[in-house]
Amino acid sequence: MRESLRQLAPYVTTKARGLPLHLNTNRLGVNPVIQRASQLLEKIDLSIYADRDAMPLRQALATHYDLGPEYFLAGNGSDEVFDLIFKTYLNPDETVAYPGPTYSMYRHYALTNGANAVEVPLDEAFDLKAQALVKTKAKLLVLCTPNNPTGNTLHAQSIEKVLRSGQLVVIDEAYAEFGGHDWIRAVRDFPNLMVVRTFSKAYGLAGLRVGYVVANPKLIEPIELVRLPFNLNAFSQALAAEALREQEFVRAYTRLIREERPRWAETLTERGFHVWPSQANFLLVAMPDGVERDLFVAELETKGVLVRTLGEHPRLRECVRITVGTPDDRAILLKAIDEVLP
Amino acid sequence: MRESLRQLAPYVTTKARGLPLHLNTNRLGVNPVIQRASQLLEKIDLSIYADRDAMPLRQALATHYDLGPEYFLAGNGSDEVFDLIFKTYLNPDETVAYPGPTYSMYRHYALTNGANAVEVPLDEAFDLKAQALVKTKAKLLVLCTPNNPTGNTLHAQSIEKVLRSGQLVVIDEAYAEFGGHDWIRAVRDFPNLMVVRTFSKAYGLAGLRVGYVVANPKLIEPIELVRLPFNLNAFSQALAAEALREQEFVRAYTRLIREERPRWAETLTERGFHVWPSQANFLLVAMPDGVERDLFVAELETKGVLVRTLGEHPRLRECVRITVGTPDDRAILLKAIDEVLP
Repeated sequence: MRESLRQLAPYVTTKARGLPLHLNTNRLGVNPVIQRASQLLEKIDLSIYADRDAMPLRQALATHYDLGPEYFLAGNGSDEVFDLIFKTYLNPDETVAYPGPTYSMYRHYALTNGANAVEVPLDEAFDLKAQALVKTKAKLLVLCTPNNPTGNTLHAQSIEKVLRSGQLVVIDEAYAEFGGHDWIRAVRDFPNLMVVRTFSKAYGLAGLRVGYVVANPKLIEPIELVRLPFNLNAFSQALAAEALREQEFVRAYTRLIREERPRWAETLTERGFHVWPSQANFLLVAMPDGVERDLFVAELETKGVLVRTLGEHPRLRECVRITVGTPDDRAILLKAIDEVLP
Repeated sequence: MRESLRQLAPYVTTKARGLPLHLNTNRLGVNPVIQRASQLLEKIDLSIYADRDAMPLRQALATHYDLGPEYFLAGNGSDEVFDLIFKTYLNPDETVAYPGPTYSMYRHYALTNGANAVEVPLDEAFDLKAQALVKTKAKLLVLCTPNNPTGNTLHAQSIEKVLRSGQLVVIDEAYAEFGGHDWIRAVRDFPNLMVVRTFSKAYGLAGLRVGYVVANPKLIEPIELVRLPFNLNAFSQALAAEALREQEFVRAYTRLIREERPRWAETLTERGFHVWPSQANFLLVAMPDGVERDLFVAELETKGVLVRTLGEHPRLRECVRITVGTPDDRAILLKAIDEVLP
């Protein structure tokens, strides 16, 4: 086994069944494109390989964003896209740095690709300290905005400072549809910027596993060389391309999140949780005084509600992450919480 | 860009349309499981992630092979599975060795994961020289049987010699259904053996991108740690599991190949091609005297028939690989060849 893997911890999520408020998936439901899935399937010959380069999907993305298809590369979820970026741009023992606490998988991609991972602390308000990040001189910098699991959008000015350093920067915009700045436009101005997006959250297609990176073609080309040909299956390619036309659904869902988010924050605050400001489809909350987190999460699970514990990060030890959902979801969550809290 | 990537050549296949005899896909057509695809889709909620560990598919494989699910790990095609194996078991600068000429992607997986790739020549009959391979002392040995693109099955005795060396061995059985030994049973006896299989060839589901590795659970566990959670989308998982029940289709297709293969070989030999013995669903053929390969392939393409050129390997410079298909495919191919040949 590769040496760098010895530090690797398995990705832990519950496999229990229940109201899924633990993976930040779309609680409005699945993308309505699913109604055309059988029709799309009829046009696909699954006995042959799908387009080697996912070109029809990239064309659809190009039209959607008004950029050329050469600005895009698609993969099996943003996870594969990140893995490809890390594999392409990091020599063994080079370093990737990111402000944290943040998405735990950045460390995974780094270690599995033989690179080092350095977390630079976010400030007290979980905002970005640009200079500290740049000063790491890491080969690759990763910014998640809105940041998972803290929920806040990193300040645009700080991000620009990071971009102006000229270092390679990846911005993970998994939650960008829910609030804050859109950095995709900036790839024209910053040849060192890669923006990663997903169909798993706002588009309601987590089960399809499609993500993509947008960047200057000069940054895409080397990743293209590393990407395994035919990496994306025919059905995921076709359905994702078609889902880009379902903007009304995306708007309805992001509207739901904007309406519900303050209500969830308010009722949780009333029950003694500390709730951080969020511009994503989830809330970071700290336990009320005297409530033990892991016990709380386990008891909530027995009531049929799944929320996400956040491991042993020193700043998250008393925290859970809760996916915002529908008014019905809120009622179910609060009922369960009221049964569980002392 | 990572240093080791500078030696990397892009994977080249034609994107022309025509009779696809270039990618060894199923010419009997798509797996009949496709008739149940819409029904399966109705049971899948694509708004949530599929099973993180593809457990239902691994259970189906376990039942099919009468081994526990812990013997299996699934990925997006055998390509992803190989990439995971290489990433798990090779430190940077360690070496993978394989008898060649063989599948060009082994070198790709090695280089993209910072490892070295060494080809040990197959003998005159394209059979395995076990001792030469073992003597490389490479960290990982890869055997493809039946071998792509030569078509022959590597001798079981030679493979056993390699296995008895105790070195880590991966056997790529992408074409195992068409002839020769089945090494999956041997994973119980050899704790150093991993066998890789695919749904892209005999199962007629290339567009679905599902492959898997079978091995002693002690070899699977470290790969499991490296594998990205949720790597396999919900639809591919469900359809592949269901496709295992379509053994009558697999039998009909392998019967077709066994019947057609000698006919294709005979007519090609009559036209002056040298045809190597094959136990796969394709033939390796060398050009008749005086026929320039790349020109031949290009002209065949203008007639609507796609075959595979095999790059610049010194032993394949005059060779093409042709996927065996139906009697109709044979008629179309021969008509095109007769138009093209001088």
